[in-house]
Amino acid sequence: MELTPETLKIALDTIWVMVAAFLVFWMNAGFALVESGFCRAKNCVNVLAKNYTVFAVSSIAFFLVGFAFMFGNGSSFIGLTGFVPSLINGSASFSSLDWTTVPVAAKFFFQLVFAGTAATIVSGAVAERIKFGSFLVFSAVMTAIIYPIAGHWIWGGGFLSTLSTPFHDFAGSTVVHSIGGWAALTGALILGPRLGKFVQGNAQTIRGHNMTSATLGGLVLWLGWFGFNAGSTMAADGRAIAHIALTTNLAAAAGTIMALSTSWFLQKKPDLGMIINGTLAGLVAVTAGCDVVSTTGAMAIGGIGGILAVLASFAFERLRVDDPVGATSVHLVNGVWGTLAVGLFATQSGSIGTLNGLFYGGGSALLVSQLIGVVAVAAFVLVTSTLAWLSIKSLMGLRVSPAEEIDGLDIHEHGNVAYDWGLEPAQVPATPLIAHVVTQTMHQKPAPVGAAS
Amino acid sequence: MELTPETLKIALDTIWVMVAAFLVFWMNAGFALVESGFCRAKNCVNVLAKNYTVFAVSSIAFFLVGFAFMFGNGSSFIGLTGFVPSLINGSASFSSLDWTTVPVAAKFFFQLVFAGTAATIVSGAVAERIKFGSFLVFSAVMTAIIYPIAGHWIWGGGFLSTLSTPFHDFAGSTVVHSIGGWAALTGALILGPRLGKFVQGNAQTIRGHNMTSATLGGLVLWLGWFGFNAGSTMAADGRAIAHIALTTNLAAAAGTIMALSTSWFLQKKPDLGMIINGTLAGLVAVTAGCDVVSTTGAMAIGGIGGILAVLASFAFERLRVDDPVGATSVHLVNGVWGTLAVGLFATQSGSIGTLNGLFYGGGSALLVSQLIGVVAVAAFVLVTSTLAWLSIKSLMGLRVSPAEEIDGLDIHEHGNVAYDWGLEPAQVPATPLIAHVVTQTMHQKPAPVGAAS
Amino acid sequence: MELTPETLKIALDTIWVMVAAFLVFWMNAGFALVESGFCRAKNCVNVLAKNYTVFAVSSIAFFLVGFAFMFGNGSSFIGLTGFVPSLINGSASFSSLDWTTVPVAAKFFFQLVFAGTAATIVSGAVAERIKFGSFLVFSAVMTAIIYPIAGHWIWGGGFLSTLSTPFHDFAGSTVVHSIGGWAALTGALILGPRLGKFVQGNAQTIRGHNMTSATLGGLVLWLGWFGFNAGSTMAADGRAIAHIALTTNLAAAAGTIMALSTSWFLQKKPDLGMIINGTLAGLVAVTAGCDVVSTTGAMAIGGIGGILAVLASFAFERLRVDDPVGATSVHLVNGVWGTLAVGLFATQSGSIGTLNGLFYGGGSALLVSQLIGVVAVAAFVLVTSTLAWLSIKSLMGLRVSPAEEIDGLDIHEHGNVAYDWGLEPAQVPATPLIAHVVTQTMHQKPAPVGAAS
Repeated sequence: MELTPETLKIALDTIWVMVAAFLVFWMNAGFALVESGFCRAKNCVNVLAKNYTVFAVSSIAFFLVGFAFMFGNGSSFIGLTGFVPSLINGSASFSSLDWTTVPVAAKFFFQLVFAGTAATIVSGAVAERIKFGSFLVFSAVMTAIIYPIAGHWIWGGGFLSTLSTPFHDFAGSTVVHSIGGWAALTGALILGPRLGKFVQGNAQTIRGHNMTSATLGGLVLWLGWFGFNAGSTMAADGRAIAHIALTTNLAAAAGTIMALSTSWFLQKKPDLGMIINGTLAGLVAVTAGCDVVSTTGAMAIGGIGGILAVLASFAFERLRVDDPVGATSVHLVNGVWGTLAVGLFATQSGSIGTLNGLFYGGGSALLVSQLIGVVAVAAFVLVTSTLAWLSIKSLMGLRVSPAEEIDGLDIHEHGNVAYDWGLEPAQVPATPLIAHVVTQTMHQKPAPVGAAS
Repeated sequence: MELTPETLKIALDTIWVMVAAFLVFWMNAGFALVESGFCRAKNCVNVLAKNYTVFAVSSIAFFLVGFAFMFGNGSSFIGLTGFVPSLINGSASFSSLDWTTVPVAAKFFFQLVFAGTAATIVSGAVAERIKFGSFLVFSAVMTAIIYPIAGHWIWGGGFLSTLSTPFHDFAGSTVVHSIGGWAALTGALILGPRLGKFVQGNAQTIRGHNMTSATLGGLVLWLGWFGFNAGSTMAADGRAIAHIALTTNLAAAAGTIMALSTSWFLQKKPDLGMIINGTLAGLVAVTAGCDVVSTTGAMAIGGIGGILAVLASFAFERLRVDDPVGATSVHLVNGVWGTLAVGLFATQSGSIGTLNGLFYGGGSALLVSQLIGVVAVAAFVLVTSTLAWLSIKSLMGLRVSPAEEIDGLDIHEHGNVAYDWGLEPAQVPATPLIAHVVTQTMHQKPAPVGAAS
Repeated sequence: MELTPETLKIALDTIWVMVAAFLVFWMNAGFALVESGFCRAKNCVNVLAKNYTVFAVSSIAFFLVGFAFMFGNGSSFIGLTGFVPSLINGSASFSSLDWTTVPVAAKFFFQLVFAGTAATIVSGAVAERIKFGSFLVFSAVMTAIIYPIAGHWIWGGGFLSTLSTPFHDFAGSTVVHSIGGWAALTGALILGPRLGKFVQGNAQTIRGHNMTSATLGGLVLWLGWFGFNAGSTMAADGRAIAHIALTTNLAAAAGTIMALSTSWFLQKKPDLGMIINGTLAGLVAVTAGCDVVSTTGAMAIGGIGGILAVLASFAFERLRVDDPVGATSVHLVNGVWGTLAVGLFATQSGSIGTLNGLFYGGGSALLVSQLIGVVAVAAFVLVTSTLAWLSIKSLMGLRVSPAEEIDGLDIHEHGNVAYDWGLEPAQVPATPLIAHVVTQTMHQKPAPVGAAS
């Protein structure tokens, strides 16, 4: 290949897209850690296994059909070209992605990590009671069908992208987070709350088991989001990348501080879980508009997002929705908020965009388009995800038995436990009788099988 | 924008600077893990919350004023242009950063992650006894005022950068690590030691709670440092980047091995905490001169750094300074050592620099400049950080009550506990009576509120 | 330096190689987490210390001699130029690496992280019974001599690279993984099984202590592998990078799903440890051919790899080989499988390569070359690693005493424990007598010394 500024540009674009994709891939670790940290130790293996395996399932499902439904050429409702044979032999054309110069394999890989994110968002809301296999099947449906079709409307050339004032969702507040969020909500509702969550109508605190995991997970996600948002340029546009990283980080910072303040005010103490979810809320909220808002707008959007995350988590409890990790508060509520916020805060001045929202003299046209997108996606995902959950329920069941839920899913679903601190006799030199009993109680767990044997 | 080698160069420079900044951002996770791992479980949530939130506070404080004080045009003492309005609208000029071609948002973002690092270094030395809110206020002062002013002298065009033989601190042994280290020292001194650290004048071992966290944190920091040092090129200069990554890694390796050897010799067994701090010491030490030293110089600087870290941790204990994680041994002692080492080991031969230190025939001029810088920064930070700590102490208090310290800061400051291993009845099938008691003791912690509920 | 497309290309190549190297460096964290998670808590500090320190040792050993043996100009058996003096002063030439334009420091750094990987693979198989110092000495021998010589044959211009149909191992299924795997096997055999692993000829389950660590480690490795495979282009070839990332990920996904299925089928429950090892198996297997296979081939190779990992772990138990983390099942078995699979699945169509294997009409020539390489490397590493292990055994001993093994290596080798959950009186308000005893048993561990004091 001849070495010209043009070919160099393609190489540089590709490097950037791939590095950004690796950062987004890394978010799988963030979701696994936040969710497992916020859940109980007895379900930790199950939560980890779900979050780990879901990306493998997504990789295959999105490769075989999802990418074609989402980015293939087709109607304003669905893409219909580029299924796996033509994707492989390079004959497929994806006109909705023609704007980026990178090889089709890079386009696919970058979009795959987004699809995986949408699927993994669901995991948190249905945690601690869903069957492992049923979750995997839902993930396949999600990344093969639900996410791609709704995504096609926005990023694949579908009808939301061709409104007279096009719907604007730069990196996926709606495409990834609220699609994931709506499916999470239907899953949580259909499964019902965990045993013991609501006692005589009162919400009970079910404490997570590991704040080290949750905090590390929060930082992983914060890091990964730089790839998520700035990578969505899908080109090495330095000015855009720097601006987006800046707005993304300011929204995260504002979300963190406002969630901390809200928690401190309402709960009298700054709760670390709320702080982490505040960051994520700020990040979700700024995702749609990170390119078209100014730094001021980013701080406003993120700060409000942080407040919303705290308030929404209380509101969902009032509504008897049991979402163990706050996935709906973070991804659904702030996915919607961030999408609408584009209609308010978009500005040509101090951003890299060309849109003006309501607060910057652009009138309500953009806000209306954003609202149309929010409603359309909500309706579609509420219906299709409900159908998917109910189909899976009737075919293979959705929820583990009460006995399994009480004992923990780790033992029954995986034949394993997450931790064994293994107090050995040499480390337990106290009164022999008691020490023996303590050792016994620590050791008498069901013997699992497997790799660690 | 026209596609030319010049515009491509800017895009490539920006990609590199942003990727390096992401790696430095990731160091927040490293600091959180090392500090929490080296502290006790009862303070783990607090330590995590400090390290997590500090970057949000830094982001806002450095954006609003810190960046202008540090890099704005102004006097040889302080920058005075580029506060947030002009930073946003692009009218600000930062002549001290004109040497890099990247967009101003990229310059800001890269410098922000450095400011955040300086603030988070303080956290470790004041851990397990400082009030959460007081720490956050100090962090804001640190990143808005103290760090930017001293940093201006060196990187912002201030007086240390205009000495006849300019002070050389490529990536911040002084700017980041010893500024952070001096503030950590004053904090530790003003707070006083943790309860139980010194009993009748004898230092007591207060064991950390999680070496998995600490080790993972060490590896995160090692990784992040490649962005920290090699990214400080702020340009895609391949030869410089490769050389700096190599010297950085050799210094880290030498620091690791020498700390391991020193620990093995003095303590009879290779202590993992010392090994990790040895790596960090090597990294801190090589940070100032990673560009101007050879691979041999890097190994010498790093190796001596590893020895110093071990010896300094014993020396600080002798001096009755209680620094739970060794932040002063790592960042202060080796920040100073590394800065002075530039005056000894700088060489034009086998480096990418143009300086020669004392050992390479350059005479003592550079060493004297380095010493001037070390002293000036020390004086400034000792005074200003002391004033800041004392002001905060008089306004809102610095230290938690003895009762809170004994119970752990997690419960009192955050209403939470870090871990709940949740031995459930099904997993504890031993003698019923005792098993019940054990379960009780594991479960009767104060019920926290929050996201994980 | 003049700014031309040519110089820009070198800069871009270097950025890519360095970023990829950072990702591979990050795999150190993955190996540390997977191995420590799969081992017992009483050996956790030791496992972490091994995995942490090994890269420091590798850095020095590969710098001083290993790189010259591997890539120096020399015979078809060994490289003999480029030892540290000429490497430093730039006079060395490495004609086997002339094909990449990046600076020699970048070539070294990228190859170093591979050498470190080979050394750390060994760690898992010899875990929980090897002396810390003895392991470090073996690591030095491995990265200074064994790995470089065998690697020279393949990547350094040696005899396997000059076969009439050259041996093909793009990113190191053989060079890194099976070299590491053979040395792991001899180590495990010479050390013998852990106490209690085989009781009256029956393999016993020895459960790992932390599945959070193991799962996070698996995701770290999955991430790092994108640098490992796609970085082995050592040039910013966008099309190659995107293709390789895609085949790498599809093999990982297929390995994950097939190991999950195999485990579910054989063990009745999907074991998380097996799932993680399935991913790694898929990754190891596709490493040799990630450039020359199609996406279909990648899924086949990875999927078979996932099945092999599960079956091999049972087979090694039958053979009375005690490999605590399955390093041989993952790295050795799949390193061999992946290398041979190139001879089967290589295809010019739908890949970026120019080879055709048996299944794509290329006949058996390539498969025969692959087999020759597998056998030659096996013979060399089996012999040299056995000699190294036995020499170390006679000089300083290899295995800790039975008492140390029973108590745990952490206390005896490092004077430390990995965890101290520190139930404080305030958190243990139950029946005073029993609570006191419980607290006692948790606290009466030997007091370690060190950084965390």
